[in-house]
Amino acid sequence: MLRLYESHVSGNCYKVRLLLHQLGIPVELVEMNLTRGDVRAPEFRARNPIGRVPTIELSPGNFLAESNAILHYFADGTPFLPTDRLVHARVLQWMFFEQYSHEPYIAVARNWISHAGIPPGKEKELEERQAKGYDALAVMEGQLSKEPFFAAGRYTIADIALYAYTHVADEGRFDLSRFPALRAWLDRVARQPKHLKITDQR
Amino acid sequence: MLRLYESHVSGNCYKVRLLLHQLGIPVELVEMNLTRGDVRAPEFRARNPIGRVPTIELSPGNFLAESNAILHYFADGTPFLPTDRLVHARVLQWMFFEQYSHEPYIAVARNWISHAGIPPGKEKELEERQAKGYDALAVMEGQLSKEPFFAAGRYTIADIALYAYTHVADEGRFDLSRFPALRAWLDRVARQPKHLKITDQR
Repeated sequence: MLRLYESHVSGNCYKVRLLLHQLGIPVELVEMNLTRGDVRAPEFRARNPIGRVPTIELSPGNFLAESNAILHYFADGTPFLPTDRLVHARVLQWMFFEQYSHEPYIAVARNWISHAGIPPGKEKELEERQAKGYDALAVMEGQLSKEPFFAAGRYTIADIALYAYTHVADEGRFDLSRFPALRAWLDRVARQPKHLKITDQR
Repeated sequence: MLRLYESHVSGNCYKVRLLLHQLGIPVELVEMNLTRGDVRAPEFRARNPIGRVPTIELSPGNFLAESNAILHYFADGTPFLPTDRLVHARVLQWMFFEQYSHEPYIAVARNWISHAGIPPGKEKELEERQAKGYDALAVMEGQLSKEPFFAAGRYTIADIALYAYTHVADEGRFDLSRFPALRAWLDRVARQPKHLKITDQR
């Protein structure tokens, strides 16, 4: 069976659980203790040179890392990833946006405020990250006020990637009330067949 | 003709120029003045809701953003992007690594030190970014001590993505002397047919 090395609270890991559940692919979950440094242990680094979760073991000794690359691997050949060359690139456009302009602000603010605690001396940096998080939410609102989903006019892995941390943005003290199109999209995603919450166990 | 909205000094924009040159695809370059706020202007935001460079105009009114998504679009169907499902995902693994774990540290340190100036009060943050930049270089060294390129055993868009800011890492005061495999890879990339330097004009 597939084995997913993950941290259950992580939105990046949740993306993979959500897609696998929607595809009906069973997976064994291996919880990594990040504060204990499990991902820095030599045995884990030998598996995944990038040293982060999620990492998936596709077959014994064959590992793939980076949440959005894992989504791409499993979505390839399914309705979750369009095959048209430009639409495919647009899905990736939003997934790169997610990792570069969304996750570093919304996920980190959530982690500091609701999970790990704000590191000493980082209060000003938290404010800056929240401002940039709101910039990302405004970009999403712009897209979602024109289209029901991020690409292809339908639910794809671009939506899964952006949903992961957006639907728990309140844990980073983001107020979504000013983003009506985004809130409607959150509901639309949650109504997809075989939806899973971040807190659900398989 | 294709039109690329770019900032010539940006490694993210250079990635696109390099691939298009290697593919023999002509492009018109439109320099955006980032300090003047060209990307925040309403006319540009209407073209590209993400509001960043590079943005490419594929046909009148049809725009694609995010450097690595643009690379994917043009490499699709060429030797620069393998078609095998897992190898394709591995190319993307390294491209997501580049945007999440490499660019925010190496590109930002370079920009502050050699181009825009260190923002007031950001000296400590610069140190943190340099430490994380070295972490990214160490991950690259680990991969390149085992394989000649990042994926597929040959030159792909994963190499283009990671080369862009690595080959000018000295401008961010990164010392590459401790990374011999990485330096050999930089030479290998520079010897590819139709290579272009970041400072070259088309």
